[in-house]
Amino acid sequence: MIKREIEHLDYLEQGELEKIHQAALTILEKNGVEFHSQEARDILQKHGAKVEGEKVFFPPPVVMDMVGKAPAEFTLHARNPEKTVTIGGNCTVHAPGYGSPYVMDYANNTRRNATYEDYVAFTKLAGNSKYIDVVGGVLVEPNDIADRLRHAKMFQAAVKHTDKCLMGSAMGGQKAMESIEMAAIVFGGMDTVKKNPALISLINTNSPLQFDPRMLDALMVYARHNQPLIIAALAMTGTTSPVTLAGSLVQQCAEILSGIVLAQMVNPGTPVVFGSASSIVDLRSGNLAIGSPESVKMFSVIAQLARFYGVPSRGGGSLTDAMIPDSQSGFESMMVLMNSVLSGTNFILHSVGLLENYMTMSYEKFIADDEMLGMVKSFTERFPVSDESLALEALLRVGSGGNFIADMHTYEHMKEMRIPQISSRQSFAGATDLKNTPQRAHEYSNRVLSEYQSPELDENIEAELDQYVAALG
Amino acid sequence: MIKREIEHLDYLEQGELEKIHQAALTILEKNGVEFHSQEARDILQKHGAKVEGEKVFFPPPVVMDMVGKAPAEFTLHARNPEKTVTIGGNCTVHAPGYGSPYVMDYANNTRRNATYEDYVAFTKLAGNSKYIDVVGGVLVEPNDIADRLRHAKMFQAAVKHTDKCLMGSAMGGQKAMESIEMAAIVFGGMDTVKKNPALISLINTNSPLQFDPRMLDALMVYARHNQPLIIAALAMTGTTSPVTLAGSLVQQCAEILSGIVLAQMVNPGTPVVFGSASSIVDLRSGNLAIGSPESVKMFSVIAQLARFYGVPSRGGGSLTDAMIPDSQSGFESMMVLMNSVLSGTNFILHSVGLLENYMTMSYEKFIADDEMLGMVKSFTERFPVSDESLALEALLRVGSGGNFIADMHTYEHMKEMRIPQISSRQSFAGATDLKNTPQRAHEYSNRVLSEYQSPELDENIEAELDQYVAALG
Repeated sequence: MIKREIEHLDYLEQGELEKIHQAALTILEKNGVEFHSQEARDILQKHGAKVEGEKVFFPPPVVMDMVGKAPAEFTLHARNPEKTVTIGGNCTVHAPGYGSPYVMDYANNTRRNATYEDYVAFTKLAGNSKYIDVVGGVLVEPNDIADRLRHAKMFQAAVKHTDKCLMGSAMGGQKAMESIEMAAIVFGGMDTVKKNPALISLINTNSPLQFDPRMLDALMVYARHNQPLIIAALAMTGTTSPVTLAGSLVQQCAEILSGIVLAQMVNPGTPVVFGSASSIVDLRSGNLAIGSPESVKMFSVIAQLARFYGVPSRGGGSLTDAMIPDSQSGFESMMVLMNSVLSGTNFILHSVGLLENYMTMSYEKFIADDEMLGMVKSFTERFPVSDESLALEALLRVGSGGNFIADMHTYEHMKEMRIPQISSRQSFAGATDLKNTPQRAHEYSNRVLSEYQSPELDENIEAELDQYVAALG
Repeated sequence: MIKREIEHLDYLEQGELEKIHQAALTILEKNGVEFHSQEARDILQKHGAKVEGEKVFFPPPVVMDMVGKAPAEFTLHARNPEKTVTIGGNCTVHAPGYGSPYVMDYANNTRRNATYEDYVAFTKLAGNSKYIDVVGGVLVEPNDIADRLRHAKMFQAAVKHTDKCLMGSAMGGQKAMESIEMAAIVFGGMDTVKKNPALISLINTNSPLQFDPRMLDALMVYARHNQPLIIAALAMTGTTSPVTLAGSLVQQCAEILSGIVLAQMVNPGTPVVFGSASSIVDLRSGNLAIGSPESVKMFSVIAQLARFYGVPSRGGGSLTDAMIPDSQSGFESMMVLMNSVLSGTNFILHSVGLLENYMTMSYEKFIADDEMLGMVKSFTERFPVSDESLALEALLRVGSGGNFIADMHTYEHMKEMRIPQISSRQSFAGATDLKNTPQRAHEYSNRVLSEYQSPELDENIEAELDQYVAALG
């Protein structure tokens, strides 16, 4: 977990932010949001929203009152207490890529369908990472597992192979409930899970200005059980949202707020995250452009809006539009990641592995992105400015034209520097290895997978979990 | 030129910054700096510094008094007035890679000696760039030109093939004077050049705490003619500076301040830039690690120190330790560039092209880095938040579940988005081109070079310049 020690970036001026806020309130009041669930509409109506057909209209005081009930930060518990994280404040928590149906076939420069074997492998890479905090999400779609079982098999793999924080399924109320029941097995009962939230789940809006029934059912189940929810807009400018960034942010803000309002009505104080995976669309091709500076601006403002509402934020990731792990993949991913962290984003999904916007996971990029997480973390950690580190004595001792290599100050402080995991610092003169970064990452990934040791898991818990999953089908 | 519209990042707290400042003053007073030039020492002594042998000791009031004479920002004139730039304030000016002896041979995955032909080619690429502001520096070392003529041939190529701002030679007093004389030919006489500075030059310190005679002679010539000077420390932590970042910053600050003091003593008000090209050293290999987060932290603090002293700053670039233009090259370069711009760095040398720290220029990376400059520029330009861009009417018109693609608001505002130069936004489904970024950059570079039209240059000026260069040897 990154604990940012440097100030965050506020992209917009306060007055501009408030304009977006006011416009979002206007949309919530005048256009409303379609909630495709009778149960959700009943709850919304009962607490002061106006319902007409599938549409729900929100009086501004109801919105602000409900959003005010959400906590500014919260704790997400891992089965290994050392890996429990804080979501909010100056913390940034990382989760791997989420939801891609494909995996990069690096040797053949193409993509193939993702499988459960990939899912387990990426889980192990995430378990091995020093920087990934949350696993158990849809790291890749295990296309070879029946839909009815996918969420359970993914959860089982995450618990068996890591002891990090977990995500729950958002694919409807039943799978959400089953996710909670499995968490209860791992964490010692339903009461413990309710008291110490153990599952964070991703609820996407259906832009523009709708929620589908599956997501709403999951939202309500998790909220009732006090499990954290990322409410995230997934708008595409010029198609499912206005083409202007300001207009797209207004819409996203309205969608996210309406989801947060529902969660708070179900259970006041439900931990929520104000999130976005929105992107501009390249209107020449119709493709997403998630590695674009415009998309980064939106992520930055999403983090700022979340601070305005007093809730944690989600956005960004190591995002790129490149199909292969080349230099574009590197520079786009770093731009999005760096700015998301500097903007104070609290939860970064898609922190490692994605290529071709959200479509393809790559073993090679997973490892390269993990290196980036270490670099960005290091940048946000300030260095000591003390009598000792200012090195006045060493400077006077070595003096003009001297060399610090043999000075004791160097020996005492050389550990201040970060050692890269896979990056090269060789030069052509004396280079022993001209492999490129994906080649080095490929080898690193293979090595991790062949040597990986899953953390210990109580035998009874493992057996009970296996039994639960087996009983599903 | 980037005119940053978002706030800058202050990496250190004010108290920490002042500790570095105070320690630097202590070093200047107690250890002093070696100035390997009798003329420089005489000037320093005459204005209140204490001289013992080659060493010069600076009383703090003398330092602060002299630094106070330097302008907070200044104008650097181009022969095309539209390309004149401001150095200081919220502006960031870009110059290409500087000084590499090698060029990447992309086809053979190796490096070769740079030639004058490369120099001219890189000058044309810089001329073509929408983001490069300054040319005429040592884009690459033209190893096939006699040392006596290099500065003149480089200047000549820069003037013939671009109409952008220019750099002068720092290789001793004579070459500095010749650079000024050539500028006088181009800009209409020595008086004009003195009044409207037309050459910016790079004076490196010789760490730790020394200046060599060649750099000092150039510094004094330029200062006398009121030409802007970047005074830059080039320290390597653990070898030519303390291994701690704080200690290395103290030393750099002392070195840079002493150079600025000399420039102000020669000619009060000489435009100067507080600069650094310093880096940590990877102590396992002894190689520089300029793509490291620690080096970025130093660049960020250099910009902050410059603001503290009220002068423009130089640091950063698209820097990497990768030998080839792969994903490491991309993510390291973006990290350094992005943070340099966000930290408010005013002059960014090495903005495009470098690989293998400062050793190798690459046509392919030049083009990829130029793309990055456009992305970073776009990120620093805020988007409109107006009634029109907030899109309330469009949102109410399209409503829940609609599509914005056919709405008039989309047609009216779609130009808000930046179109990439070489980056791909294709997807595997329907991809027509699986080339990687260096391949696309290679083709782009070849196309620019074959189609490049040099801007018009007055025939008389061209003839006079040719004559001047021919007369040198």
